Amino acid sequence: MAISARNGIKGTVESVKLGKVMASIKIKVEDPALITAVITKESAEDLDLAVGDDVSAIIKSTQVMVAK
Amino acid sequence: MAISARNGIKGTVESVKLGKVMASIKIKVEDPALITAVITKESAEDLDLAVGDDVSAIIKSTQVMVAK
Amino acid sequence: MAISARNGIKGTVESVKLGKVMASIKIKVEDPALITAVITKESAEDLDLAVGDDVSAIIKSTQVMVAK
Amino acid sequence: MAISARNGIKGTVESVKLGKVMASIKIKVEDPALITAVITKESAEDLDLAVGDDVSAIIKSTQVMVAK
Amino acid sequence: MAISARNGIKGTVESVKLGKVMASIKIKVEDPALITAVITKESAEDLDLAVGDDVSAIIKSTQVMVAK
Amino acid sequence: MAISARNGIKGTVESVKLGKVMASIKIKVEDPALITAVITKESAEDLDLAVGDDVSAIIKSTQVMVAK
Repeated sequence: MAISARNGIKGTVESVKLGKVMASIKIKVEDPALITAVITKESAEDLDLAVGDDVSAIIKSTQVMVAK
Repeated sequence: MAISARNGIKGTVESVKLGKVMASIKIKVEDPALITAVITKESAEDLDLAVGDDVSAIIKSTQVMVAK
Repeated sequence: MAISARNGIKGTVESVKLGKVMASIKIKVEDPALITAVITKESAEDLDLAVGDDVSAIIKSTQVMVAK
Repeated sequence: MAISARNGIKGTVESVKLGKVMASIKIKVEDPALITAVITKESAEDLDLAVGDDVSAIIKSTQVMVAK
Repeated sequence: MAISARNGIKGTVESVKLGKVMASIKIKVEDPALITAVITKESAEDLDLAVGDDVSAIIKSTQVMVAK
Repeated sequence: MAISARNGIKGTVESVKLGKVMASIKIKVEDPALITAVITKESAEDLDLAVGDDVSAIIKSTQVMVAK
């Protein structure tokens, strides 16, 4: 299955921090050093995210801004 | 001025495609090869975005998904 | 590959309208009758979206509001 | 008052989980079985969301992706 | 009907620019002078948005960044 | 550095509420009285946000809805 989101950045999970509702996932990528994703705690648990996992950060193009 | 958005990915503009309202900007980065940002045509013009410009793709953490 | 986005709604493509940069996709689902997705024209073309295609509308939980 | 968000999906609240800042609301709809909305705890309290409430999940079209 | 989106900013429509798929709406507010909303052309037409209309810009809290 | 996000609303921080992962920042602006921003706790700490700080709420145009 392919998804319309244009942007996928491969990396490995560096940390998983669980709150009561949300979770912050740090993904180590080539450049920049780290991508932060905030997802539901439930998703983090369903994906069984753990340090060292190979993952991709997925981002819809309409969510990306440009700074110059 | 610093912004709360956690994610900034440096690159250079590879293409600027203007629609009537929106614009699609391709940013060449290390990995993945390309980030696509969809911004208003007006912003693209105000920033005077052109091929070769040094820019950053800026992404709020709550907009990033994780695929595994 | 699984994605952290919590919400997937199955349906069939009812219409594809292409602009210069963006595309509007109408997806016929059980309830409500129609979901509208706005994606890049490029994604619509890469996925080769056509009327009658079986697709899913995918939505990150942080993007969903509640009205009462 | 009408809102520009294209997508409204009717359902009933199945669960409300409050964190310190955010809240996760599960809405039972026809198809898929459940929609998850992450809103502020404050909104959940202001709307006085409780199990069984008739609500709508509201989603802006630019937030919807398509998977095929 | 009340919506969970925390932020509503009242103003009047200053301009409506229609593309093929998207529309850019400028809303004159007290401060800042102008808010830009990008919605579907379809929504702009369904709401029959015209210069001088009293409207509100509605923004979910998770979409707001802070710059300092 | 300039950012493509069209909307910046100046104000002062009225409250900072930290959860384990997320933070809710209330920004006092002219009209409406308050803007709520939900950012990561980490960003709130990195920006050292405190009551009385001069800040701007930054919002990408594609995230703004219109109600009429």
